[in-house]
Amino acid sequence: MENELYDVVIIGAGPAGMGAAVYAVRAGLKTVVIDRSPLSGGQILTTYEVDNYLGLPSLSGGELSDKFREHADQLGVKFITANVQAIEETAELSKYRIHTDKSILQSKTIILATGASHSLLNVTGEKEFTGMGVSYCATCDGAFFRKRTVAVIGGGDVAVEDAIFLSKICQKVYLIHRRDQLRAVDSLQKKLFSLENVAVLWDSEVQEITGTDKVTGISLYHKKSCEQSQLDVDGVFIAVGIVPDTELCKELVEMDEKGYVIADETCTTSKKGIFAAGDIRKKQMRQIITAVADGANAVGSVQSFLNKTFCK
Amino acid sequence: MENELYDVVIIGAGPAGMGAAVYAVRAGLKTVVIDRSPLSGGQILTTYEVDNYLGLPSLSGGELSDKFREHADQLGVKFITANVQAIEETAELSKYRIHTDKSILQSKTIILATGASHSLLNVTGEKEFTGMGVSYCATCDGAFFRKRTVAVIGGGDVAVEDAIFLSKICQKVYLIHRRDQLRAVDSLQKKLFSLENVAVLWDSEVQEITGTDKVTGISLYHKKSCEQSQLDVDGVFIAVGIVPDTELCKELVEMDEKGYVIADETCTTSKKGIFAAGDIRKKQMRQIITAVADGANAVGSVQSFLNKTFCK
Repeated sequence: MENELYDVVIIGAGPAGMGAAVYAVRAGLKTVVIDRSPLSGGQILTTYEVDNYLGLPSLSGGELSDKFREHADQLGVKFITANVQAIEETAELSKYRIHTDKSILQSKTIILATGASHSLLNVTGEKEFTGMGVSYCATCDGAFFRKRTVAVIGGGDVAVEDAIFLSKICQKVYLIHRRDQLRAVDSLQKKLFSLENVAVLWDSEVQEITGTDKVTGISLYHKKSCEQSQLDVDGVFIAVGIVPDTELCKELVEMDEKGYVIADETCTTSKKGIFAAGDIRKKQMRQIITAVADGANAVGSVQSFLNKTFCK
Repeated sequence: MENELYDVVIIGAGPAGMGAAVYAVRAGLKTVVIDRSPLSGGQILTTYEVDNYLGLPSLSGGELSDKFREHADQLGVKFITANVQAIEETAELSKYRIHTDKSILQSKTIILATGASHSLLNVTGEKEFTGMGVSYCATCDGAFFRKRTVAVIGGGDVAVEDAIFLSKICQKVYLIHRRDQLRAVDSLQKKLFSLENVAVLWDSEVQEITGTDKVTGISLYHKKSCEQSQLDVDGVFIAVGIVPDTELCKELVEMDEKGYVIADETCTTSKKGIFAAGDIRKKQMRQIITAVADGANAVGSVQSFLNKTFCK
């Protein structure tokens, strides 16, 4: 176990975690950020283009992540690459032990910024063909399907962004959505409908992903005509939402029915000394800018908490 | 009166207003931003250096404002320079008239992003010598006091930032604070205490700003020794906080005892169709990043409101 007692351990190096780190270090707090990946950025690493983080237009997710990380590095933020396995409460006032696969850290407070992961479609063939035609990241895997035919499953911003991205690489893109309208923002929809090699299949549910050693097609069910059909595709990109990564804290803090940590904009959870920032938190909008703002707010709350708990 | 009916009129072109504009335009909303100044940026325009907006380290307030505005311009945001004089409710469902000194605009919703202004010290000589030695903006006016002696009044981040900034220009800087410790973040305090030409006068209240045609000194009262003294200075920089600019909306929406608009992180006020974003809103942390996030959240709420109110 390390002897150092941190003021704050930030778990997760996405926008919320890096936002928190910048505020924590500038506030003179003894700070460390832990992430399982040496590449900071979280979900934005797999985002094709980000155009709504004010002041940094038209960057790829990777470029934006790099800028975030460079900022943190300039301020001397300490990053550790490790898997956090458990958070242990101690008998001492506000002292937590953070068990990782490499060491045990001690901290007065914790900011949970573990974010969220892709939801599964939960159909036959999905797990079997993951990495063999089934992907959750168009930006990462699109290039493997150059001049091929692919399907994107979903109807939100990410699904439409994925379809737009893939239309530049693939010969034909099907966007398959179970409803009769998309949830994506208007500007993305307009762009999508302007693309000649994209077809939207409405009211359609994926029943099975088929293939032998790799994907060759999908079985569809049309909810209005009640007809089944088979569509030949080489790849399936699944973009049907996200689930919060709360495995670590589910015994520690209160969560809502969907698994998001309950905390208001101050990021204060039901457990003293533990704060939740970014996509893991129950909130209206899960955006990069709101995640980074959460990081700042969480550090504000950490400071108030430390001042109150450890009177100087 | 203009015939156009906007989906959203954003009042104020600071970080909150520009953040809202980017989200509104990308969401396909008919949008306009009104500000009394042709220079967008609000309070950050008078900030020497901003180092906590993640991804854009070490910029002057002016540079950061420019990046925000360029982003909005790239997306085709419409800006109008005018003074908003009144917001009028109409008998029609969710239709507001925004009266400016140039025209009358009509909109389904309004985002109030008018921000905040500097607080006054309220001592004799303050108003009399404003612009003749008394300033509320070190970044703007510091250069006029090259190799002179100045006092900064306050104890928060802005006061300490101002003192650090002025120490590079002036021969001598006094930081005058009415308490025995500063509220500013540790990193700023460390920097301040390392500067040889800065002296902090603790427990000291300014009683009067003195001079003839311009400032020559200040009268101080020491709260612990109960002694009065006179300090010769050429300039006085007042950095004692901010007050929200709510003149426009004080009859429209509920406010707290300090005059901040009551709205949670969704930016929803007590009045249907009116939202409040940024420093004007009652909240924990008034920072650039939290203001920009408010802009995004306000637009999310505008969209939900429009969808509910004007069913398509």
